[in-house]
Formats: sequence, C-alpha cells, structure tokens
Amino acid sequence: MSFERDNVRRMAGYVYGEQPQDPGIVKLNTNENPYPPSRRVADAIRSFDVDSLRRYPPATADRFRRLVAARFGLSADQVVATNGGDEALRLAITTFVDPGAAFGTTEPGYSLCPVLANVQNCEVVRVEMTPDWSLPGDFAGRMNAAGARLTCVVSPHAPSGVVVDADAIASVAAELDGVLLVDEAYVDFVDPDLGHDLTSRLSRHDNLLLLRTLSKGYSLAGVRVGFLLGNTGLVDPILTKTRDSYNVDTLAQAAAEAAFADREHAEKGWRAVGEERGRLTAALAGLGFGVPESQSNFVLAEAPPGASARALFERLRERGIVVRHFETPRLANSLRITVGTASENDLLLTAIEELTPGSRPCNG
Amino acid sequence: MSFERDNVRRMAGYVYGEQPQDPGIVKLNTNENPYPPSRRVADAIRSFDVDSLRRYPPATADRFRRLVAARFGLSADQVVATNGGDEALRLAITTFVDPGAAFGTTEPGYSLCPVLANVQNCEVVRVEMTPDWSLPGDFAGRMNAAGARLTCVVSPHAPSGVVVDADAIASVAAELDGVLLVDEAYVDFVDPDLGHDLTSRLSRHDNLLLLRTLSKGYSLAGVRVGFLLGNTGLVDPILTKTRDSYNVDTLAQAAAEAAFADREHAEKGWRAVGEERGRLTAALAGLGFGVPESQSNFVLAEAPPGASARALFERLRERGIVVRHFETPRLANSLRITVGTASENDLLLTAIEELTPGSRPCNG
Repeated sequence: MSFERDNVRRMAGYVYGEQPQDPGIVKLNTNENPYPPSRRVADAIRSFDVDSLRRYPPATADRFRRLVAARFGLSADQVVATNGGDEALRLAITTFVDPGAAFGTTEPGYSLCPVLANVQNCEVVRVEMTPDWSLPGDFAGRMNAAGARLTCVVSPHAPSGVVVDADAIASVAAELDGVLLVDEAYVDFVDPDLGHDLTSRLSRHDNLLLLRTLSKGYSLAGVRVGFLLGNTGLVDPILTKTRDSYNVDTLAQAAAEAAFADREHAEKGWRAVGEERGRLTAALAGLGFGVPESQSNFVLAEAPPGASARALFERLRERGIVVRHFETPRLANSLRITVGTASENDLLLTAIEELTPGSRPCNG
Repeated sequence: MSFERDNVRRMAGYVYGEQPQDPGIVKLNTNENPYPPSRRVADAIRSFDVDSLRRYPPATADRFRRLVAARFGLSADQVVATNGGDEALRLAITTFVDPGAAFGTTEPGYSLCPVLANVQNCEVVRVEMTPDWSLPGDFAGRMNAAGARLTCVVSPHAPSGVVVDADAIASVAAELDGVLLVDEAYVDFVDPDLGHDLTSRLSRHDNLLLLRTLSKGYSLAGVRVGFLLGNTGLVDPILTKTRDSYNVDTLAQAAAEAAFADREHAEKGWRAVGEERGRLTAALAGLGFGVPESQSNFVLAEAPPGASARALFERLRERGIVVRHFETPRLANSLRITVGTASENDLLLTAIEELTPGSRPCNG
C-alpha cells in the first residue's frame, strides 16, 4: 500500500548533478566555485566552541542577517537566512502559492523549480526565453494571464549564464500581479563594470524578492547558507511562519559570517572566474561552439554543426572530465560547463579540441 | 498589499523557547542535553578539510545513513537524514497530508506540529491524552473517523515525559488507516531496563515512521541532524522527492557521524540524565509538586495547591533560571523543566524551595 499524496506519487524527483568523490575527476558539472573559501572560514571552524553545539542555534541567524543587511543598505528584517538557496525557493513557493494555483518560471530555467512546484501541487507555467536569452516582452502579461502568484527568474540565467537586464526585471516586477523572485545565485560573478544591481530596486517594488547564496560566490556549497532580500511584507511571513525554526545550524552560521565578512577574498575569486570565463568562452568559440556571453561561473556551449553534445559529454566523462548535459530540445546539443581553475580549463579545452576534430581553433 | 497565502496570513508562527545567550543563565527551558557532545565531534570538526566546503554535500548523507541502519538492523534505504527533527516532521506532513485533509496529533503534544499543519493548510485533529498521559483506547478509531492521513505521537511524550507503551503504539499502527509517525526525539533517555523499542516493530507495520534526532541524546541541537526510520514505501518519496536535495550540510554530516559512532559517550550522558531525573522528580514531589514518571530529559511539574506555576516561572526567571511554561488549560499550572547538570538542578531546587514556602521537603 502506498501512503504518499497523489501529486507526490505522480511526480519525478529533482535530478541533481553527479557528485563523484574521486579527487582525480575534473568536476565541472555543478557550478561550484573552483577556489577554496576564505581562510577566515577555516579559522572560525577551528576555533569554534564545539561544546556549545549542545545548544540550539540562534533561530533567526541575527548576526549573519545584520552583516547582510549592512552590506546592501537594508534593515535586518528585510533578510531571511535559509538552508541554501534551494530552501529559499521552496519557502517562497510554500508562502506565496496555494496548491492548484500557478507558479511561473522560464523555459529553460533552474530545473529544481518545477519539482518544488510539483511538491506543492501547483500548476507550472513556463514562458520560453527569447533566442538571445532575454525575457520576452510579454513575459509579465502572460504570467498575469495565467494567474501566477509567484514567478521565478534566474539571473544570471541558468543554464545560459546571460544576465537579465535590471530595467527589464524592474518592468516585470512593476507589471506582475504576484511576487517576482529573482534567483541571483550567480550574481557575484557579474562583471562589476556593468553596474548591475537589483538590491537598490527593492524600495520601489513591494513584490520583489532576491535570492542569494554563499554556495557559489563564497565557495560554501557544503555549508548550505542562502538568503532572501525583500520588503518586510514578503520576508516576515517566511521568517516567522513558514521557515523551520532552526533552519541554519550554528556551524553554518559561523562559516557564513566569516566568509561573508571577507569580501576581499571572495572578490578575488570572482575576478579570477571572470577572467577564466572570458578565456574559456573565446577558446570554445574558436573551436566552433556557440557560447552566449555568460556573467556567471559557467558557460553554455552549443556544439558545432556535425558534432553531438551528448557524445562529447560521454567522451569527456570517459576522460574523467564531468560537465552537465540536459536532454531537453533546446539544450540537447549544448554542454553546461562550470568555469574551473586555469589548469582544469586547460584540460577541458585540450580534450574538447581532440574530441571535435572537425573544428579548428581560429589560429590553428 | 500582502502576497502570502490566506492560511499563512491567518496562522501564528511557532513560538520556540527563549534562547538567552548570557552564559550566567541556568537554561532549563528547551530540553538541551546538559553534557557536551563526544570529543570525537570536536576532533572531526578540527580536522575537517575546510577547502572541501566549496563542494556540495553528499546529497543523501549515505555514510551517516549506513551507520544508522547498522545500529538498528535496518537497510540504508529505510533511513532518511533530515535538517533536525523539525524538518522530518515537516517532510512527513508535506509527503502524506494533502491540503484540506486531516493531520492527527495528541493534546497536549509538540506545539510545532499544528503550526506545520497550518503551513500545509491541513485540518488539525487533536485527541486528548488520558489523565495518566496515555493514549485513549479509541485513539486510532477517532483518527480514522476524522480521516487523518498522518498522525503524530510523541513518545516519550512532550511535555509530560511519559513513555507511551510500545504495544499500545503497535496497536494504533495496526488500526490506523493512515501513517503513524512516532516522534522519538527523547527516546535515548528511556531507562534501558524497560526494554522499550519500536525499531523492531517496523517490519510489521508498513505505515509506521519513527523520528529520531541527534539534538537531544547526542548533544547536537546546534548541528541540526535528525532522521526518519521506516519501510521504503514511506521513506522513498521523502528521500527522492519531497526533501530538499542537499538538506544536511557537510559539516553537520561529519559531526553527526562522529557523535553517533561514539555510543559509549552518549550512553554515559543518558545514564547521568536518568539519575538526575530521578533525583529531580523525587525532590519536586517532596516539595508538593505532581510529577509524572518521566522517561525523557525533562520533567513536568504541577505546582502544589495554592502555588502558581506562572508566578513561579517568573520568579525563577528573575533569578536567572529559565524553564518553560505553557498557557494552555491543562498545562497552565505546570512547569516543564529540563534536567540539567547536578549543580544546575541544585540551583533550581533551592530556588523553588525558597519560592514555594507553603511546601516543605518531606524530610523538612
């Protein structure tokens, strides 16, 4: 006999990227930061009072929330800390979307979103990104017509890496009847010269929520700390009602505080990723791949005519290089490749060059 | 304008126990273990490879799950690790109870349960515990009549501390149409001479789920690791569908593995708590309090005739001793007191003796 709800029985679970433990693997499949976290994280963990773990964590992670609020010129009650960005997505759906109501997302987008919507038994409304990876002009109108209570846009977008223009986001927020959640998991990697910033828009949009995480930009995927930024009308019900009371553990809070406070270390990594991203993009383009301009720590590389992304994915895997391949129509001939260290990227490029003999580097 | 769902707007959030940070406070209000975790936890944290935190955690905490499965003679696919016991409760509701359907609980019981049910917009069905803190004979029948898809029983019961007889649990499981979740957060503190064990009953009940946590018995409330035990029909949808993919962080997994493996250390603490619990119970009874026989790490003490539990709670608070008081009809004249260290318990007993002058110790 089976006891789970019908929607749970019918749905498929989230397929997360492979997590091989073999240290010899070149792991470029789940967009982890190629550089280690700040040494202050190690110091915080090594000097941590382990006996204090018998006590519950600070329930609302106030010290961390104050650090975050100060960084963005917000008040702490506009911040809620979460068990990674994934919990923030789940909490937004739990808080704002009734079962049976509509949840909006882009196609393609973060593949976890429809899974979370299925758990909540929502209707998933998908609007296709334009060929150049922007939001279509009628995006908000279509979400309103479908009755979306919450719409999620990932920017920089996954899996294209393309940043969605801040003015376009603001227009969508202004037009939407429901909540707009911008998943900014990768925003730390945006070229600072672009001046891209959504936090300053929060004061003008009471329906705008921004999702951030320390997983990518601060090299802390292992500790699971993310946060939501928004006006108190959106943040308060999550902070005081729908969130599990002790959702972020004490060690994770200590690690997050240490990492977040060492902005200099993090920024050094963001710059290095940006440089490697540029090199990777140029080299892949030189090999005939189509690569949209990524502002993230990964690139989406469309295989050259005559080459198969699926076959390339498998050949790379045989050589111990793991990237990500999605079997959807729009993405089936592309690979999503995390920007690694310079030597990892060299290994990748060499392998791809050898595996796609039809293509030649520009200067070849 | 407010965007949250109607049920979220209407509901009140969970009121967790006060978490004073002042180390001078005698904190006996949230049932934390009075003793520190195993030294192996400190060793695991100190020797942890902090650079590895840039990677995601093992998604299903397999090493920890194998340890747990081996301890209870189960297979690893009968175990799911959670971000504390609270997440396990939430996941059970998410997985088994449709919005609008009924969720069953005891009155009184763990006050988080109705809050989680409100988030899911379930109907909460409460069945009163008997005067001696047992389940009434028609418990399962009443839950079936109400259509409960999931029923939660806390054993040892909170806030009475009384353990629910294993045969009674098995009878309820056999009779219930839905899932029976037994929240065994405090089960490690049950006197081993009682031979109380529900894990051996799992093979006979495909609707039985057991919740355990490392928060209490292993002194790890700060790291948030709990787990569910059950047959794969119940565990699998939680493990593969409704759980957030990386719900337990890497450091928490390491701490949990170390603590769980050092059973000798944990058992020493359980014995010490049991001895202090006996002393506390006898002393409070001697002062005229009514104290049910607790098998947990707390006692429920009903104030003697003429004394006010609420006033006593406040006077203790003024002296820097924090216990828990619930403003419900059945509990309003009782205090829930966590078993502390011997010296903490001495401070508490001395204060109570001074504050309840109408009562006299038996030998006074």
